[in-house]
Amino acid sequence: MHLIIDGYGSNPQLMQDEEYIRHLLDSYPAQIGMTKISVPFVFRYVGSKPEDWGVSGLVFIAESHISIHTFVERCYVNIDVFSCKDFNAEQVIKDFRDRFQLTRFTSRLINRDWDPAHLAEVSETPQLDLV
Amino acid sequence: MHLIIDGYGSNPQLMQDEEYIRHLLDSYPAQIGMTKISVPFVFRYVGSKPEDWGVSGLVFIAESHISIHTFVERCYVNIDVFSCKDFNAEQVIKDFRDRFQLTRFTSRLINRDWDPAHLAEVSETPQLDLV
Repeated sequence: MHLIIDGYGSNPQLMQDEEYIRHLLDSYPAQIGMTKISVPFVFRYVGSKPEDWGVSGLVFIAESHISIHTFVERCYVNIDVFSCKDFNAEQVIKDFRDRFQLTRFTSRLINRDWDPAHLAEVSETPQLDLV
Repeated sequence: MHLIIDGYGSNPQLMQDEEYIRHLLDSYPAQIGMTKISVPFVFRYVGSKPEDWGVSGLVFIAESHISIHTFVERCYVNIDVFSCKDFNAEQVIKDFRDRFQLTRFTSRLINRDWDPAHLAEVSETPQLDLV
């Protein structure tokens, strides 16, 4: 299961708070029964344009990850919760909506399929599904 | 743009080679014009079941990331190339198909939408699109 949440929040302080994001990445996996296999890695990014900055963070969980990328000036965030184990996606959406005080968001659940029968054999032309 | 590639390879040596994956994460962003903002983080994971092990790696690029999770016994890999900048998805698919000698795979390109008009306002019931 790979849950994607992209949204706009109402509180830019949360979007720029490295320690808040580090603590969230550190504590959240246990809340949903995931096994953390690293410390959280959290960086402040400042791009070439002054308005282009934010915080990027990630924690590895067993063979997958949770990542957060914020864009402070837009009060926008990209969240990925990718896990081999099933989790309650609706609860995770609610949790992150609340943690980032999201006012508008979209969420998508992507099936990262294991079944070889569902995967195409390699051909010269890469297949590409737009979703 | 967020490109997902999930596939089975023919060479388990590549799937377990931490240095190969580290080098790939270190060198690949520049090949597609992305700005690396961290060193690659690469871990070997061993789960509770003996057949459940692999290598997880990630490099942060400007406000996004490239991640790789391998499952050596299955010769299976999950790859995410997530970037705010456009890239040539077909070329990236070919590159990773070749780097991991994939024989079967699926690839999906996800639009991580910025436009607030396309994002739903928050309601009590989280919306969830299955893709």
